[in-house]
Amino acid sequence: MKKLLPLVALALIPVGQASPVQAQASARLVAGQNKPSPLAPGEIVAAAPKADWIAIAPADLLVMDLVPDAQGAERRVVIQLMPPPFSTGWTGNIRKLAAAHWWDGLSINRVQDNYVVQWGDGNAEDAAKAKPLPAGLASPPESEYVSPAGDLYERAEAAGRGHRGDAYAPGLYHRDGWPVGYDRTSQWPVHCYGMVGVGRDLSPNTGSGAELYVVIGHAPRHLDRNIALVGRVIEGIEHLSSLPRGTAGMGFYEKPEQRTGIKSIRLGEEVPGLPAYEYLSTESGSFARYADARANRRDAFFIRPAGGADICNVPVPVRRVP
Amino acid sequence: MKKLLPLVALALIPVGQASPVQAQASARLVAGQNKPSPLAPGEIVAAAPKADWIAIAPADLLVMDLVPDAQGAERRVVIQLMPPPFSTGWTGNIRKLAAAHWWDGLSINRVQDNYVVQWGDGNAEDAAKAKPLPAGLASPPESEYVSPAGDLYERAEAAGRGHRGDAYAPGLYHRDGWPVGYDRTSQWPVHCYGMVGVGRDLSPNTGSGAELYVVIGHAPRHLDRNIALVGRVIEGIEHLSSLPRGTAGMGFYEKPEQRTGIKSIRLGEEVPGLPAYEYLSTESGSFARYADARANRRDAFFIRPAGGADICNVPVPVRRVP
Repeated sequence: MKKLLPLVALALIPVGQASPVQAQASARLVAGQNKPSPLAPGEIVAAAPKADWIAIAPADLLVMDLVPDAQGAERRVVIQLMPPPFSTGWTGNIRKLAAAHWWDGLSINRVQDNYVVQWGDGNAEDAAKAKPLPAGLASPPESEYVSPAGDLYERAEAAGRGHRGDAYAPGLYHRDGWPVGYDRTSQWPVHCYGMVGVGRDLSPNTGSGAELYVVIGHAPRHLDRNIALVGRVIEGIEHLSSLPRGTAGMGFYEKPEQRTGIKSIRLGEEVPGLPAYEYLSTESGSFARYADARANRRDAFFIRPAGGADICNVPVPVRRVP
Repeated sequence: MKKLLPLVALALIPVGQASPVQAQASARLVAGQNKPSPLAPGEIVAAAPKADWIAIAPADLLVMDLVPDAQGAERRVVIQLMPPPFSTGWTGNIRKLAAAHWWDGLSINRVQDNYVVQWGDGNAEDAAKAKPLPAGLASPPESEYVSPAGDLYERAEAAGRGHRGDAYAPGLYHRDGWPVGYDRTSQWPVHCYGMVGVGRDLSPNTGSGAELYVVIGHAPRHLDRNIALVGRVIEGIEHLSSLPRGTAGMGFYEKPEQRTGIKSIRLGEEVPGLPAYEYLSTESGSFARYADARANRRDAFFIRPAGGADICNVPVPVRRVP
């Protein structure tokens, strides 16, 4: 009887932001920016010099603790808020909501497969039961779904790194740590896996930021410029993406008792003992080599490199500071 | 205190293959193929005439029953195998493995967030414990990752529906119910959410089909033409995508007891009482209108249609025969 080779351990190469790397990574590093490298993407990230990493301020983190799971294990999700110029009206509201501990005791109300996990006030539709919002929240207009291009167009074109071949945006670029779409006059964040956005009602309502969702499926890029993005999950997304799917319309839970409780959501500076996080500078040579390797897989598993990559398949590496 | 509009029920439009539809859908249908329609994609699908649906033969279905969940609920996953000319060596093996009941008693061994769920023999790496494969399995060569283009190039170009603006393939087309990439001489299936493929070791090994995975994250299109695709999940993917993520390398479970057991995998014709399934003909006018509406969302939620769509954001509608 024919006996196959072991298929398990090498069967697929990981895609995650923190791929396991091989010990000999740095020895094989090819010097020189933008130069093709024989290293796998994760190896390039692991070999990046300390100077290529940028610290994330605790004030830009949102820490969501869910109630413990059935086995009593803690479940923490860490979100990095987007920096200016993006979505500042909504991120300002989110900071106020977190400072007011507004989400504490609320819940995950919707889990739709290949789409989003959404949380907030499960009683928002019922005026008699809805939790009042803190005073002083902004009502940002739809025009803030995009920002002025500033020098992005010139920067992206000069770098020769605009991801062309995209169905949704004239240009795409990793700008200061974030995936953005752009044209000559404007720029906007894009809906990749793990991005966090603001639930809203029909236009012209743009949402306050009290109702948030995270993408847990194929990038729903048709939402770009139609809804506000405010951040991304940098740790613990599996506590959201592996939740049971809701069976009512759009993945909402049918019964309140099916919801997962939120113990607390805090800004990072309020959380004792929070680890320090950093991201790989998207303006660094390490990132350029990493992006090139994602588009042209030269590691042993691959027999035919694609020669290109969807921007959502080039996630910005984020890690705990070693 | 400012009181927000209810944000929950209308917060996001569903993406799933079986979107809820509104009762007045057919009344608003615009006649004429390829003509822009004000209907939402799900409404177009619901209004498609019976003649636009194609039955899926039970012999082309693979039915995976997992062991019941912690609450004792049954978990069934239904997979549609790819038709010729794609991957026939591997789908032939899979039919033999199912007929031999080979997967019965094996397990889900790997769940990697934003990537794949993988199942097969958890002891495959240990020659002493590995489960012997049935006799007579084929060893398809790497050349079968692609098929000759046949008339696809001409069909796709004539239809004017090749999805241009893609980082991975010169052309993309929905062919006879499946998303495929193509160039002038060849065609190949693409890695969208829910697609099922064949785990393998390093080249020139191509895998037998005994070790299978399903995509549960953003489309890993860099795997196209590097690995064999053999089908797609058409029902019950949530039983796989919501499993706990494995915490060992590449999402494998650290301990055998963390694996989810497979009760049985059968070809559809061996499963009593299996519902009948059908898919929307990708050559129909209904599909053309649906694809156009996915690329140009005109339903009330959207303020800015994208003007294009990634092929993996145009999933082929599949349903139980009403």
